[in-house]
Amino acid sequence: MARIAPLSGFPEWLPGERIVEQHVLDTLRRVFELHGFASIETRSVEPLEQMLRKGEIDKEVYVLRRLHGGEDEIDPSKTLGLHFDLTVPFARYVLENAGKLDFPFRRYQIQRAWRGERPQEGRYREFCQADIDVIGRDELPFHHEVEVARVMAEALSALPLPPLTMQVNSRKLIEGYYLGVGVAPGEPVAGVMRVVDKLDKLERPKVVGMLQDEVGLSAAQAEACVALAGVQADAETLAARVDALGVSHPLLDEGVDELGRVLAGTAAATSDRVRVVADLAIARGLDYYTGTVFETRMQGFEHLGSICSGGRYDALASDGRTTYPGVGISFGVSRALGPLLSRELLTASRSTPTCVLVALPGEDDRNAMGIVADALRLRGIATEVSASAQKYGKQIRYAERRGIPFVWFSQDGGHQVRDIRTGEQQDADLAAWVPPTEDLRPHVTGAVATDS
Amino acid sequence: MARIAPLSGFPEWLPGERIVEQHVLDTLRRVFELHGFASIETRSVEPLEQMLRKGEIDKEVYVLRRLHGGEDEIDPSKTLGLHFDLTVPFARYVLENAGKLDFPFRRYQIQRAWRGERPQEGRYREFCQADIDVIGRDELPFHHEVEVARVMAEALSALPLPPLTMQVNSRKLIEGYYLGVGVAPGEPVAGVMRVVDKLDKLERPKVVGMLQDEVGLSAAQAEACVALAGVQADAETLAARVDALGVSHPLLDEGVDELGRVLAGTAAATSDRVRVVADLAIARGLDYYTGTVFETRMQGFEHLGSICSGGRYDALASDGRTTYPGVGISFGVSRALGPLLSRELLTASRSTPTCVLVALPGEDDRNAMGIVADALRLRGIATEVSASAQKYGKQIRYAERRGIPFVWFSQDGGHQVRDIRTGEQQDADLAAWVPPTEDLRPHVTGAVATDS
Repeated sequence: MARIAPLSGFPEWLPGERIVEQHVLDTLRRVFELHGFASIETRSVEPLEQMLRKGEIDKEVYVLRRLHGGEDEIDPSKTLGLHFDLTVPFARYVLENAGKLDFPFRRYQIQRAWRGERPQEGRYREFCQADIDVIGRDELPFHHEVEVARVMAEALSALPLPPLTMQVNSRKLIEGYYLGVGVAPGEPVAGVMRVVDKLDKLERPKVVGMLQDEVGLSAAQAEACVALAGVQADAETLAARVDALGVSHPLLDEGVDELGRVLAGTAAATSDRVRVVADLAIARGLDYYTGTVFETRMQGFEHLGSICSGGRYDALASDGRTTYPGVGISFGVSRALGPLLSRELLTASRSTPTCVLVALPGEDDRNAMGIVADALRLRGIATEVSASAQKYGKQIRYAERRGIPFVWFSQDGGHQVRDIRTGEQQDADLAAWVPPTEDLRPHVTGAVATDS
Repeated sequence: MARIAPLSGFPEWLPGERIVEQHVLDTLRRVFELHGFASIETRSVEPLEQMLRKGEIDKEVYVLRRLHGGEDEIDPSKTLGLHFDLTVPFARYVLENAGKLDFPFRRYQIQRAWRGERPQEGRYREFCQADIDVIGRDELPFHHEVEVARVMAEALSALPLPPLTMQVNSRKLIEGYYLGVGVAPGEPVAGVMRVVDKLDKLERPKVVGMLQDEVGLSAAQAEACVALAGVQADAETLAARVDALGVSHPLLDEGVDELGRVLAGTAAATSDRVRVVADLAIARGLDYYTGTVFETRMQGFEHLGSICSGGRYDALASDGRTTYPGVGISFGVSRALGPLLSRELLTASRSTPTCVLVALPGEDDRNAMGIVADALRLRGIATEVSASAQKYGKQIRYAERRGIPFVWFSQDGGHQVRDIRTGEQQDADLAAWVPPTEDLRPHVTGAVATDS
């Protein structure tokens, strides 16, 4: 083990950074479970054949082979790859276990995924995602689209992140608008969507030109389609902003109504930390989503792209007889946290769970101090006994270095506790002393102050 | 997605089974943190070259390749494999981050690992392990060997598992005893250990013969060496049982003393659920461990082998200048839970975190019922609103099917709550009602009743 260097794209956290990540994951879990989402985890691998059916990202898949592999490696239908997201494995899990699940099935899934793409800030080869989805059998009422937006917005609000903007749109709204403009249904509508989606990379006149040249729209139609993507609105202004564009179609009305309901339904979760807005430029994975779609930007970190995305899908999972429509959102835990941790914008108050260090008068006192530590642990106070009976000054400095807030001294049946931040040392009752609640566990300080 | 079948060796749990696993992982984390162990996670991959240095299990490693891979795949020194345990990655993590860690460093690590071996009950290709280790710089006092045994015994005691026996031995005791018998130090002692280790597979006379033929011991020496492996003892009887064998050596005395201290130090964690005994037949990974060694058997599941193993190692991590000695134990979470879950010996009281289902009088009441649900969630009560406004009888049956204990009815400003187990329905105060503590979260029932 001579040459030790980090592997690019495979981030690892130091203990204090891991405490921040644990705080984030615990918070997500708490909110998801409060709303009745059940945890599942899937295996890390899927048959390569099945992953490739989803197309597009085949070049990024990590394929497995046993070093001295046997029959599995000969039969390509048995080749396994590491999953590149949590949606494809979840769809497979639902089909495999449909007879044992109750629908609508609410689940959250916090797991790693892998993509062999070129690493850059916030884009890793191994990363953690936190997904929520609600999946129905045969049908899934619209109100679940409001629900997942609301639950994720509430979860994100509870995290110590910079301000977030969740951008919501409706595929029905876009499609209905294009139909109202006079674009033919089917492939032409999809074609317009694909071209308009390039507005974040190309200039507006270029896109207007492409709509005429490639999809065959008139100049007026092309301008109208591009105009829609410029609309941003809230629950109050959405209908008027769309009306002002002068296009009408029943599907457009349905989309505006649904999008309005998402905005209204997330209003309670909207705060200084998380704004939910209608952004009619958001389209996402063109062939995949059929209703509400979501993206999320983090203020000051717009270069990361969307850190939390998803939407309504009608036919991701189907076994030919039964179709399982769903709606879900995926929060890129590593993508959001990595840049914040590396810039030390998110820190933990200590690098260990330990709240109290029991000082050791001499090595012969280890058993007695162990009993003292156990008395504190019984009340849920994370406690360790000094590793060695150095001078008290050295033991105190050991605690200081790790951010352990209290050192406990026990001698001749008397007890004292020292707050290492103030240096104040007081008599304490071993049977009753508890630390201030905020010191019981490490707390996390973020770009935005949190009360965690 | 036509053919959907489970992949042998890659277990997945249903939501109710996952709740059992979560309970186990939460319990382990709670106990580890109470003792000041910090969480870390390492990346899932290590350079293949470095993994193979540990020898022995190279044939089981899963090697990664990008489907359309580039330069990484050409340079064999950059080939990556999935880690097969958590010890090798942890040793690498310590070397990589030594300048940023404080020693002795206590860490726990709960993660998946992969081995491409033939699947059988409790042996998976993808599995979860929970490890604790304490690692020092240059030196690590013996008391940490007691500490890790004690912490793991306490953690195992808190789990809803069948009775466990943790078998402890000391490599110093074995080596000192062999030296006292007259075996030459170095390779001959190691040779005796390797042969005696076969006692679980071969008959005793066969092993005695091999010790004479292969290692060159006298008949009396061979009998003496085999006799040691027959000793099982507790803290009270250990010294007398070893004395009775009539062998003496300073290293033997040191080993007996240390083993006695492990037994005494774990006495507080010993219970009906977890017995800690000296078993002088336990040797484990011959070239690896240098002090205390551990194995653990689960009653009724002895065919799984050891479900929790480890020991003291002096030189696992070294960068040439500095050596990091450590001691650790690894609990095979999947190995222990898999067989218990598949036999339904461990079950959760419900398959969802939801404690209360808010009944929906009509679809128009969804917003109002959402406000009712939020009032309950504010008090930490996991709540969902009915997915559809079916007849109340159907909504109650939906709750019953998932084991959701309470259904909430709200109409005209009045509230009632129904316990679906008794059918009892009572007026309730939305601002104050709380469920009995044991119903707040799903509880886990095991082969052994627990109060979790």
